[in-house]
Parts: sequence; structure tokens; C-alpha cells
Amino acid sequence: MDLTEIKISSEEIFDGKILKVHRDQVKLPNGKTSSREVVDHPGAVSIVALDDDKNIYLVRQFRYPVNKVLLEVPAGKLDGGEDPLDCAKRELAEEVGVAASEWQKILTFYTTPGFSNEIMHAFLAKGLTPHIEDKDEDEFLEVIKIPLKDAVNKILKGEIQDAKTISSILAVAYTLDT
Amino acid sequence: MDLTEIKISSEEIFDGKILKVHRDQVKLPNGKTSSREVVDHPGAVSIVALDDDKNIYLVRQFRYPVNKVLLEVPAGKLDGGEDPLDCAKRELAEEVGVAASEWQKILTFYTTPGFSNEIMHAFLAKGLTPHIEDKDEDEFLEVIKIPLKDAVNKILKGEIQDAKTISSILAVAYTLDT
Repeated sequence: MDLTEIKISSEEIFDGKILKVHRDQVKLPNGKTSSREVVDHPGAVSIVALDDDKNIYLVRQFRYPVNKVLLEVPAGKLDGGEDPLDCAKRELAEEVGVAASEWQKILTFYTTPGFSNEIMHAFLAKGLTPHIEDKDEDEFLEVIKIPLKDAVNKILKGEIQDAKTISSILAVAYTLDT
Repeated sequence: MDLTEIKISSEEIFDGKILKVHRDQVKLPNGKTSSREVVDHPGAVSIVALDDDKNIYLVRQFRYPVNKVLLEVPAGKLDGGEDPLDCAKRELAEEVGVAASEWQKILTFYTTPGFSNEIMHAFLAKGLTPHIEDKDEDEFLEVIKIPLKDAVNKILKGEIQDAKTISSILAVAYTLDT
């Protein structure tokens, strides 16, 4: 069965300060037409930064849309066509003040493929060294360092509730354990 | 450090066929004001339906925003204040044609807390029996059944790229293995 929907036309219908939305007319697999609204996103990275003692860095950050402080892996948006690895290095330095000598892509995934094109590039970073010169002191976040195993337990106990963080940490934990 | 951002005012700024966006003025932890744009979402469920032989059901579905057929766990949006468990039962019947006698909440998480309030309720369903009377034949999707272990491998090989699916399956696999 061909499940593909074909774009007929596209228009930008919302251009906010942060969010952009476009609406496309599409041809469905059964030949009918329908419309699709999509939140445009530049793509993002997430980083599981693992030290030699199997600790990882997490950031506590207030997330206004869900009105909660969440515990997340360091992450950030691609800056105008930026290479994902360059972005990951930049974000790890800015948010945590750390550089890494070994980088490994662990997952590439879509956060909400039902309504946004956001793609997430998840990296495992090892060989960590302090790199405080690029740390961004203006971000409202707190950095903590905890054993990877404790982070997995926090996921299973519901204390970590961010999808990119859950996906990235469990993938790393699974890969290291098996 | 108090990281909380306080709402000053709120207005709906986009009301599409599918997507709604509101913009709030907020007071930041440093006392300055800023604006936050949020995609409104009713919340959703995802289901890892595990049979007695440790197989799970996945659905192949075209996701227009990312222009790809993705392999995902059965899932769906809450229908006007619907209880998440009721929604999970309904979606499992509609998408897969299966009922379950044992339901367990495995995770509650946010798919994109940076720009949407979507909350995902992930369930593990066991004790599966056919329930084809509510199957929705109009959805454009294909159902497959594969060993849970194969699904984990597909995640690690990059063949499953949906965040709710990755989070839900790895959490179940981790719980069963440890």
C-alpha cells in the first residue's frame, strides 16, 4: 500500500516571533485532497555527555509551555543551517562548560512528526574536559552531574519527562549495557 | 535559583484547522519581561502492546510534516478531555484491532516542551485479544507485529525515528530486562 501524501501547494500562514506555521494542500493515498498544518523548525541537537566515571550532565530548566522545571540533557536548536555536530559542541560548551574529544551519533529522530518537522540529532560525547570560556551565563539553567544509572532510574520513576532526554539517555544506556 | 517564568497575559494568536498557538507575556527570573509562543495540544497516548511471545504491534504511517513513512507504536490524541486510559484502549482497538486485559502506565512525558504543551501518556498493554469491531478501516496505516527485541534493534539502527515510540519501547524493554 502506498501511504504517501503528495504536496499540491504550500503557503505560510503564521509567522510569529518564534514559531512559523505553513499549510499545505495534499493529495491523499485515496486520491482525495486534504490540508496539513506544519510547525516549521530548524532542527536541534541533544547531548549525552558521559565522563570516565559514567556520570552524565543534565540541565534543570523552566519550560514555559508545560509550566514546569524539567531535567533535560543539554540541547539546542541548529543556528541557520549549522552542522549538527558543530551545534552539539557549541551547546555543550555554552550550557555545561565542557568540551569532548569523542563524539558519536546515537540517534536521529522526530519529536512530533504529527505536526512539526523538528528533527533531533542525539550525540554521545566522551573524553570530557572543562571548557568554560564559551559558557553562556545568561541562560536560566542549572547544571547537575549524576550517574547514568541514576538518570535511567529517574526516567523510569517519572522524574525525567522530556522526550529527547528519555530517548537519548535510554539509547546510550542500552548500547553500553548490551 | 528560582527558574520560574510567571504569566502576565495571554492571547490566542493563531487558530488553524489543526493547530492553535497562543502567545503569553511572561516575567523572567531576572525580572525582565519576554514573550512565549506555545502550540496548544490536547495531549496524547502511546501504547506498547506486548503479547505472550514478547511481540509488539507497530504501525507504519506517512507523516506529512517530515515527508516520510514512520514506524510507530499505536497512538492518538485525547478526544476532548478523554481519560488517557480510555483513549489508549480506543486507539489500540481502532488502529490495531486488539483489546488488552492488563494496562500499566509506563511513562508520562512532554514531546516538545520548548514550544508545545503536548503531554504523552505511554502505556504497556498485555493480555491481548482480538477486538476487530472497532477497527478504523479509513486510517492510512499498516500494522506489523515484531519481537520487542527487534524493535529495540530497529531503534538503535535508526529504523525507528519517532520520539514517543523510542521512549515508550526503550522504557518497556529496560523495565522487562532489569
